[in-house]
Amino acid sequence: MKRHLLSWLIISLLYSPLFAQSGLQVNQERLEEQLKTLATYGQREDGTTNRVAFSEADIKGRAYVMQLMRDAGLEVHIDAAANIIGRKPGTEKKLKPLSTGSHIDMVPDGGNYDGIVGSLAAIEVVKTLQENNIRTRHPLEVIIFSNEEGGVMGSRALAGKLGKDALKVRNSTGYSMAEGIQRLGGDTTRLGEVIRKKGDLAAFLELHIEQGGILDQNDEDIGVVEGIVGIKWWEVVIRGKANHAGTTPMDQRADALLSAAHFIIAVNDVALANEGKHVCTVGRIVAKPGAPNVIPGEVILSLEIRDLSMEKMDMLYGQIKDKATDIENKIGTTFTISPIDGTGDPALTDPEIRELIRSTATKLGLSHRHMQSGAGHDAQDMALLAPTGMIFVPSKDGISHSPAEYSSPEDIANGANVLLHTLLQLDQGQ
Amino acid sequence: MKRHLLSWLIISLLYSPLFAQSGLQVNQERLEEQLKTLATYGQREDGTTNRVAFSEADIKGRAYVMQLMRDAGLEVHIDAAANIIGRKPGTEKKLKPLSTGSHIDMVPDGGNYDGIVGSLAAIEVVKTLQENNIRTRHPLEVIIFSNEEGGVMGSRALAGKLGKDALKVRNSTGYSMAEGIQRLGGDTTRLGEVIRKKGDLAAFLELHIEQGGILDQNDEDIGVVEGIVGIKWWEVVIRGKANHAGTTPMDQRADALLSAAHFIIAVNDVALANEGKHVCTVGRIVAKPGAPNVIPGEVILSLEIRDLSMEKMDMLYGQIKDKATDIENKIGTTFTISPIDGTGDPALTDPEIRELIRSTATKLGLSHRHMQSGAGHDAQDMALLAPTGMIFVPSKDGISHSPAEYSSPEDIANGANVLLHTLLQLDQGQ
Repeated sequence: MKRHLLSWLIISLLYSPLFAQSGLQVNQERLEEQLKTLATYGQREDGTTNRVAFSEADIKGRAYVMQLMRDAGLEVHIDAAANIIGRKPGTEKKLKPLSTGSHIDMVPDGGNYDGIVGSLAAIEVVKTLQENNIRTRHPLEVIIFSNEEGGVMGSRALAGKLGKDALKVRNSTGYSMAEGIQRLGGDTTRLGEVIRKKGDLAAFLELHIEQGGILDQNDEDIGVVEGIVGIKWWEVVIRGKANHAGTTPMDQRADALLSAAHFIIAVNDVALANEGKHVCTVGRIVAKPGAPNVIPGEVILSLEIRDLSMEKMDMLYGQIKDKATDIENKIGTTFTISPIDGTGDPALTDPEIRELIRSTATKLGLSHRHMQSGAGHDAQDMALLAPTGMIFVPSKDGISHSPAEYSSPEDIANGANVLLHTLLQLDQGQ
Repeated sequence: MKRHLLSWLIISLLYSPLFAQSGLQVNQERLEEQLKTLATYGQREDGTTNRVAFSEADIKGRAYVMQLMRDAGLEVHIDAAANIIGRKPGTEKKLKPLSTGSHIDMVPDGGNYDGIVGSLAAIEVVKTLQENNIRTRHPLEVIIFSNEEGGVMGSRALAGKLGKDALKVRNSTGYSMAEGIQRLGGDTTRLGEVIRKKGDLAAFLELHIEQGGILDQNDEDIGVVEGIVGIKWWEVVIRGKANHAGTTPMDQRADALLSAAHFIIAVNDVALANEGKHVCTVGRIVAKPGAPNVIPGEVILSLEIRDLSMEKMDMLYGQIKDKATDIENKIGTTFTISPIDGTGDPALTDPEIRELIRSTATKLGLSHRHMQSGAGHDAQDMALLAPTGMIFVPSKDGISHSPAEYSSPEDIANGANVLLHTLLQLDQGQ
């Protein structure tokens, strides 16, 4: 991970025709400082940050980020889906914008790097260009997508895939997406206006922490993302019979929570029994009425399946559904499994941009590996609109969606430099 | 369940020395009417009733019941623990009171029979004696216990077992027990005054709906309760590692909800593997952080065990704890299991009173069975103070703690007549 001045100079000289600004680097200290400052929006007494979309902390954090964007010379507005859009004209009017960005909202009790690294790095890249008086041929666009963690809301809106049902979904703040969009300065009556057509963008790039442990375990600097797994969500409602826990004998119960327990284990068993990198998760559970002395009559839980292949996801779901039927018959409860909107199809990145990221990393003296993204990202929907590339930096111990999430300032700066130079290469390419 | 006049006359003649008032019967229609009237206190538009302790409905329902008590010739006051106490002197001053009663508060969305049957039947018994100008040797006492559903508050206070921690517990009205006691006309500063000593009462009787389906399934009239099961509660905290559901491979997870699923099944397995009438229940579960795309890092759930034997409960708990240790080792999560206060020891009813209830039912031509109470009752704490008896009447389909709870007017009157004649027998006995 160390860069030496000498090798840097050699590389600079060797590649000078391609890298007119090959010595250009983002300001690592400034980026680190901004990450720390953004972490204070929603910070609690114990030092952890809670900045779920639509919260007061989200609103204030967005205001801070908009100021950073203006300081970098971007013209900023909030679109109808509450995405923050920052634009800077290019030197050639007929070219479509090169776009980059990520999100700053968090899962409840999440970390300070997921989304945030790619958001602040995008702004830092533009700031670096501004400081060095570099004008790009293409217009530049930085997008801070709204409510990524609650179902990639902002990017889905751009892709024209944000349905009416999704707008009713509430997150942990208690606000529905529709209410949240209004809170953030969007306008649900004008959502149609934000939809981008295929070809509206020259390219889209997203820098992100890996959120897994592969780069960290292998001491590698950069992940060249080949594709982003598809994500499918279902709501599973299990109905039994609520009854007095003291007077209902064990053999006369229709315990919805007992069925749920068998289902949770079945989901895990199906995931383990099939080969591949897919994952299956039950993350949310509610048992009603929820008293220690009442047999649960109803359980609602979430099912999530992720894989790079849609067929594989369908196959896994089929196996899980069969197991649910077995449990239904065994315990005398009923399962209703309904797909939830707001999830994403698998998305492959653009092969040429992938190669550009790889060669840029090499030129910068950074080690890399090709890999898939197990996490969903805004880039997933953006890949429907534009040639898309995605750059990963290491996550310490692979921890994410947790206050223990961490990526080092050096690793983040490496990623931001790959983003900067990939963007400049793309700018020269057309 | 049918009584014929002829057999009644024969029984009356046969047992005339014991049953001086053997023809005496409660007024079934009046009792039915009063049940219907009390159900209007807290009744909602859909016809169901919500009368949780400390609510406005509870306060108004108690006022109605106090008026019924006065009409039956009882002198009524509210004690410091907010129990309603109605007293009538006996003919022999040195005798201790014969006491009977139950409660009129409900679980949220409960039924109109649990507690209410025993409360109104106790008053009806006194009213029947008044109408027939029958004076008992012992003083009579009717107790309407406060907040039974929120932790047998009133009866625990009489037994001197209502601790300071319990007073802080809030129910669904939002009021703590301490606040509730004040609302109902009690006085938390004088709680010590309500404590009864062993020997203060000649006996205590409680009539109650079974809340299970045994009498109903077997078409039997009366349950002679041998004992009230002990109830033990634990809070189980399972700690794993919250992590991103997309980027954490299946074989690198420490999923607290998966461990919880194994635990819930283990609790059920232990309950089924051991012979007896014990029950083991997991009724409440919370998984944190609780998002579909995050592997749960922590699960909190409730464990309840009920049985008539403390040793049996300890044995079952030991087996469950061993299974938890197995799960800990298998999935790499940790279990912390802590006992929760506010639960009750098993209580056996008095063998002589039990026999008296049985013979009284037989003399009244009612079928019966000896059984245990799976539900906790005020009689549980009263058994610490006085020889205690408990009479069950059938619950339709065994449903309780639900608006569908139902016992027929005939079954209720049967129970009230057994209560009446058992009380008269006890009165003659000393």
